[in-house]
Amino acid sequence: MKALGQQTSVEYYKCNPEILNDVSAIKRAMREAARLAGATIVTEAFHLFNPHGVSGVVVIAESHLAIHTWPEYGYAAVDLFTCGDDVNSELAFIHLKSELQAVDFTAVEMKRGLLNITEAGRIAHKPAIELAEA
Amino acid sequence: MKALGQQTSVEYYKCNPEILNDVSAIKRAMREAARLAGATIVTEAFHLFNPHGVSGVVVIAESHLAIHTWPEYGYAAVDLFTCGDDVNSELAFIHLKSELQAVDFTAVEMKRGLLNITEAGRIAHKPAIELAEA
Repeated sequence: MKALGQQTSVEYYKCNPEILNDVSAIKRAMREAARLAGATIVTEAFHLFNPHGVSGVVVIAESHLAIHTWPEYGYAAVDLFTCGDDVNSELAFIHLKSELQAVDFTAVEMKRGLLNITEAGRIAHKPAIELAEA
Repeated sequence: MKALGQQTSVEYYKCNPEILNDVSAIKRAMREAARLAGATIVTEAFHLFNPHGVSGVVVIAESHLAIHTWPEYGYAAVDLFTCGDDVNSELAFIHLKSELQAVDFTAVEMKRGLLNITEAGRIAHKPAIELAEA
């Protein structure tokens, strides 16, 4: 069965609250996660909330990596949506687990865009693009 | 059971390909979807791919609405991640279905951040913030 993409929704528990509230650290971790996964960053948006918490999204070719943190609960919600066989979201998952210092986690994987394409058909993924500045 | 947020992953099928490839139309649709849902837009990022396809993310308070389109397949992958009882992602779903002119769809709902909080506890959602410019 051919799917256009794969999405992993991760709950990271018992993370380091200081890191969860550090927008620069979160930004670095997400960018590096995208790089390790083999994804090309198209654009990104990060935000530090009042009184606390960080939200961030890295748009990659055809998909995205997103994070929302709740320092008060030591919890972060992450979505790793990737497309193509050249991008390995598991490497992003491992990197973020380490950077956030998560003790526990759960992960749910979904196929996205599971279309009725025959064996003879090939899914053409969008070509790599040059790295965008923040 | 108290969850910090709710995420709906939507597959829109048989959409209008011209709309799927129109980054301005997609941007307008996503912003209006956020507004109708009662969400406050924090920041956003949109991109038109070569040769076709649009990716976009609207970051809202503590969460996000994301879209990735494949005009060549008439398909769009949407994620509606919202937090708090004041934000109704179903209204965003309905609006996008109409704007993309989707004929069919599937939707999967997940609770995010289902934490061990007692009945006496209350989840404090981050306060509303002023509307950010694109």
